Amino acid sequence: MIRVAVVGGAGYIGGELIRLVLHHPHLELAAATSSSLAGRRLDSPHPNLRGRTDLAFVAAEEVGHCDVLMLATPHRTTMTAMTTYLPRADVLVDLSADFRLRDPERYAQYYGVPHAAAELIDTFVPGLPESHRKELRDADRITVPGCMATAAILALHPLAAAGLIDGPVQVDARTGSSGSGFAAGSANLHAERSGALRLFAPLSHRHEAEIAQSIGTAVRMTATGVEAVRGVQVVCHAPLGEGVDEPLVRATFRNAYADEPFVRVVAERRGAHRLPDPKILAGSNYCDVGFAVDSARRTAVVVGALDNLVKGGAGNAVQCLNVRFGWPERTGLEFAGLHPV
Amino acid sequence: MIRVAVVGGAGYIGGELIRLVLHHPHLELAAATSSSLAGRRLDSPHPNLRGRTDLAFVAAEEVGHCDVLMLATPHRTTMTAMTTYLPRADVLVDLSADFRLRDPERYAQYYGVPHAAAELIDTFVPGLPESHRKELRDADRITVPGCMATAAILALHPLAAAGLIDGPVQVDARTGSSGSGFAAGSANLHAERSGALRLFAPLSHRHEAEIAQSIGTAVRMTATGVEAVRGVQVVCHAPLGEGVDEPLVRATFRNAYADEPFVRVVAERRGAHRLPDPKILAGSNYCDVGFAVDSARRTAVVVGALDNLVKGGAGNAVQCLNVRFGWPERTGLEFAGLHPV
Amino acid sequence: MIRVAVVGGAGYIGGELIRLVLHHPHLELAAATSSSLAGRRLDSPHPNLRGRTDLAFVAAEEVGHCDVLMLATPHRTTMTAMTTYLPRADVLVDLSADFRLRDPERYAQYYGVPHAAAELIDTFVPGLPESHRKELRDADRITVPGCMATAAILALHPLAAAGLIDGPVQVDARTGSSGSGFAAGSANLHAERSGALRLFAPLSHRHEAEIAQSIGTAVRMTATGVEAVRGVQVVCHAPLGEGVDEPLVRATFRNAYADEPFVRVVAERRGAHRLPDPKILAGSNYCDVGFAVDSARRTAVVVGALDNLVKGGAGNAVQCLNVRFGWPERTGLEFAGLHPV
Amino acid sequence: MIRVAVVGGAGYIGGELIRLVLHHPHLELAAATSSSLAGRRLDSPHPNLRGRTDLAFVAAEEVGHCDVLMLATPHRTTMTAMTTYLPRADVLVDLSADFRLRDPERYAQYYGVPHAAAELIDTFVPGLPESHRKELRDADRITVPGCMATAAILALHPLAAAGLIDGPVQVDARTGSSGSGFAAGSANLHAERSGALRLFAPLSHRHEAEIAQSIGTAVRMTATGVEAVRGVQVVCHAPLGEGVDEPLVRATFRNAYADEPFVRVVAERRGAHRLPDPKILAGSNYCDVGFAVDSARRTAVVVGALDNLVKGGAGNAVQCLNVRFGWPERTGLEFAGLHPV
Repeated sequence: MIRVAVVGGAGYIGGELIRLVLHHPHLELAAATSSSLAGRRLDSPHPNLRGRTDLAFVAAEEVGHCDVLMLATPHRTTMTAMTTYLPRADVLVDLSADFRLRDPERYAQYYGVPHAAAELIDTFVPGLPESHRKELRDADRITVPGCMATAAILALHPLAAAGLIDGPVQVDARTGSSGSGFAAGSANLHAERSGALRLFAPLSHRHEAEIAQSIGTAVRMTATGVEAVRGVQVVCHAPLGEGVDEPLVRATFRNAYADEPFVRVVAERRGAHRLPDPKILAGSNYCDVGFAVDSARRTAVVVGALDNLVKGGAGNAVQCLNVRFGWPERTGLEFAGLHPV
Repeated sequence: MIRVAVVGGAGYIGGELIRLVLHHPHLELAAATSSSLAGRRLDSPHPNLRGRTDLAFVAAEEVGHCDVLMLATPHRTTMTAMTTYLPRADVLVDLSADFRLRDPERYAQYYGVPHAAAELIDTFVPGLPESHRKELRDADRITVPGCMATAAILALHPLAAAGLIDGPVQVDARTGSSGSGFAAGSANLHAERSGALRLFAPLSHRHEAEIAQSIGTAVRMTATGVEAVRGVQVVCHAPLGEGVDEPLVRATFRNAYADEPFVRVVAERRGAHRLPDPKILAGSNYCDVGFAVDSARRTAVVVGALDNLVKGGAGNAVQCLNVRFGWPERTGLEFAGLHPV
Repeated sequence: MIRVAVVGGAGYIGGELIRLVLHHPHLELAAATSSSLAGRRLDSPHPNLRGRTDLAFVAAEEVGHCDVLMLATPHRTTMTAMTTYLPRADVLVDLSADFRLRDPERYAQYYGVPHAAAELIDTFVPGLPESHRKELRDADRITVPGCMATAAILALHPLAAAGLIDGPVQVDARTGSSGSGFAAGSANLHAERSGALRLFAPLSHRHEAEIAQSIGTAVRMTATGVEAVRGVQVVCHAPLGEGVDEPLVRATFRNAYADEPFVRVVAERRGAHRLPDPKILAGSNYCDVGFAVDSARRTAVVVGALDNLVKGGAGNAVQCLNVRFGWPERTGLEFAGLHPV
Repeated sequence: MIRVAVVGGAGYIGGELIRLVLHHPHLELAAATSSSLAGRRLDSPHPNLRGRTDLAFVAAEEVGHCDVLMLATPHRTTMTAMTTYLPRADVLVDLSADFRLRDPERYAQYYGVPHAAAELIDTFVPGLPESHRKELRDADRITVPGCMATAAILALHPLAAAGLIDGPVQVDARTGSSGSGFAAGSANLHAERSGALRLFAPLSHRHEAEIAQSIGTAVRMTATGVEAVRGVQVVCHAPLGEGVDEPLVRATFRNAYADEPFVRVVAERRGAHRLPDPKILAGSNYCDVGFAVDSARRTAVVVGALDNLVKGGAGNAVQCLNVRFGWPERTGLEFAGLHPV
């Protein structure tokens, strides 16, 4: 058994990491930390885990050396503390934003502060098996991409890799309320957020830098907070190269994801489920991708959907560990999602 | 025009008071106070009021003498400050819990502290026109009942007044998230509260003391937080006296509320709307009441529903002012509610 | 009093027409028709109207001559029956889609059938007071625009009229479930639709033809069904002409809507309500519009929000009648909207 | 591998059966039937199953002999067709209501028709492992209880079995919209059901007969449709025998469920999760039970919560198969549930 410690275990991503580690046949939860809840049981903030563990949170300082350290800690503080985390495990998986962008200038631009550990950035491998599976096999430092970025990268990558995108991409992202985290303020009260369509990023969003870095094309995002608790949907407007038509796009997607365990190509002709919707993905590690092509106007609308806490975070991190340790990639991530829910 | 000041105007009840005062043809909003938002526009926390007022919040100390002072302030602090409020207006309407219970012992029992102004309690008239209309006509101090209490009192009062209830009543109350207020904590985050059925008071709730005081029968409440933002529904199990049957109950309700402008007796034979549901009452000042009778078992299930911020608070307060100043009781409260919503 | 009959009164738009007519001081509800519910009370499908009317639905044939006939009938059947409706009232307000497009070819393209009464199209005045107020003053035939079209036209019109838009506009529309109507099928069951992000029109939507006709620019829409019951939000990506900057856009919006009773320009610097959100508009006749400008990239994101059944339908129709009969434009439409809800 | 056919596979319970059978290591899905969708892929009505199966629905007549036949068919039609189902499998699991009540008179009373196969009733074993585990080990005909009945029976059984209940029990049941099924009508449209508190059974509900049969005490239910898609919560008011206090109740629950894999006793002192809430149970096979005791008034409020489609239906059925075939009872039912969701 590989022993895993989760740092920042009281939040939503932390709770999902704990749930998935407890469920995984080859992982053992060594510890979970929380500064505010040290001494309290793990199932206190995560009542779904009742009956699954009797562990209590510890302070971060109390965590000894582990095989794997998973960081569900805020950006900015993560990069500052990284040198204290690194010696404490053989493999470190960072779910914060701090080591996602290769270029520290870009980090400073999008996060408003200079990068505090720029020399470490290149030691991290991007935690997206679909595009970095080979490097992940012997990666000891993994940086898991953002939830909206993961959806958009998986939606756009096949077209980008095939050279079919011809110009900047507009990404319209919709995100559920769990993305704001458990520490969210009064703007995320139920009464305030219920039924809202809150366009909180009309012109630009941090995740666009990750997407652009990955697909090699200029990207602009808008982002809207929607009613769902879990779930991200991205609707990407991509200009197509000349002569690109629907059959070519379809073949490109089918080929790109034929062997991927967690990407499903969805593009039905009709019905309520013809394009990806995160509603059916809660709890699952799938990213569904789909598309509609208007070849006359040389444009594609490419859609990605996932559970922001699973494929958009904790599940994706566990999938990376499966790759890293050579286990079948679906291990511990078999849950299919529910319908209806 | 009667000049009204709202103390505690940044919260949800305060916002509704402001909305209704601005809309009322005989009321003029003189001031609204907020300690945290003094200097900010009223439409900053209440964006629905954009275009309706250019006023900004002031500190409570800045409010001069008014015709009417409406208090949307927390319990405990309200009774402590009451002697400073009283000289500042001819008519004072208190929406806190502090002067609702006639018996200060009962207050201490339910609110956990001794009453700080017990000598003032008897100077307040209960702010429920359906049962205290006559006294309200010359009342200068009005204490508006709690939202769940209002629904239960209006549901049970006809049977109680007719002597048809024979024993203690069980009240099962369901309440939307706005009842927790804008200052609510992380347990009321959207992600935590969405879809929840949170039985936060399984055996007893403060409002039961108000109900018992009003209907003269022992009352026990359970209370559950539900998904809705607005709305209270109470389901009351009342034991009936011997020989009480459905026609008698029906006649009792019809008679009791025949002339009431804001109580509707709803008891259809079938369909999705056969009993009161707060879904259709958002924004309206109606309290819908209905019932089902099992005379063989000598029991009635009596149901009340209202918008907790309107008939359960701010709207009811304005209705009291209409009575107090002799205006038609519907004045400023005409909104019918929406379907669907 | 002006006597109004509502044809198609059992649906959601019909119910809102009835509610608003009953509330209006100068309108009197003469009749409401429903083929399926003839003989049933109006408050049977519209329980919010209990206590407001004792009328029952009649069959369409039973409606005699009225001052105003309002049609909340399906597209296709409306144009076929129009010649039977026209003689039955002095003023006819059509809320169907059939007479919105000036060009019958365009109608055939977007609705899939040839227009059955093309010769009548030019006799209708578009029912949008903000752009056709003058013509509406003596209009006897009014065609009310679609809900998403209204939001997009009001959002884009100031920039278009000022010549600031330089190229085709992408409109991303999000719409609540009441837009599907009461006759919707199993895809609109609560279990299916709750929490969904259903991208039902990825490349094109009928309302884009209305928008293009009104603003004189090519328009492409995507449309997504979201969780809310009421509400439309449009997010429009508009390319700007050279040199157009944020102050110019701001001034253009302020000037365009300075005197409009039902359009609010919303563009705060920060906070949860900085851009229009239909959450606070349920029941109100406001259309909120806002924008964010990236002059470096020569693009504006323009946002419009409204209640699809009020400003997006029935309320807008009543506003047209207010113009037509010379009453103050806010008459009967004063409801401010609720927060929170 | 045990070969399973699901009859009635297009509905919500059918979809869950298919999902769980596909996931189960010892079960193999032989066929799923649907009269309306024969020939369509299983993942057409159940999009969460994309990538999990390539099967298509068949007509019921096409299903050959299987090891297990699971019936997710409507009541009334199930009893009529039972003699045709029985020869087609070694083990039959009926999820309809038709064989739950031991007394055919009681069936006639609650379902409004005489029982069509009364002679078969005694050949069925109740499909609730917590109370019939021993009989299930060699049962060939299993009748799975109703969702609300399961929650109430598991909540009340420990007290009833220990003789602590002293009088009739009042059960207040709240149920999500998936309980109405995929064939539900316009009253279950999203716009109609969203945010509703629909008290559809104020005095009595069919499931009370099942509960009474199981716990041996008179039971009366009210039932309310709430906003959630999945989930049942029952709040049971039980009169207690003399001298029964909180420690005794607690010990009784702890003892009763100490070894149960799918019943969790939840009764925390404080916090948002102190009593069972179905919100955290979506997709899981847990039934959470909890209680609050007022020994002075000799009453307990006992609360049960579950996912109506899993422990309240399909999951419970699979648990029965695990018992029947001697597999570890948690097999294929490990999913912990999500928080938040």
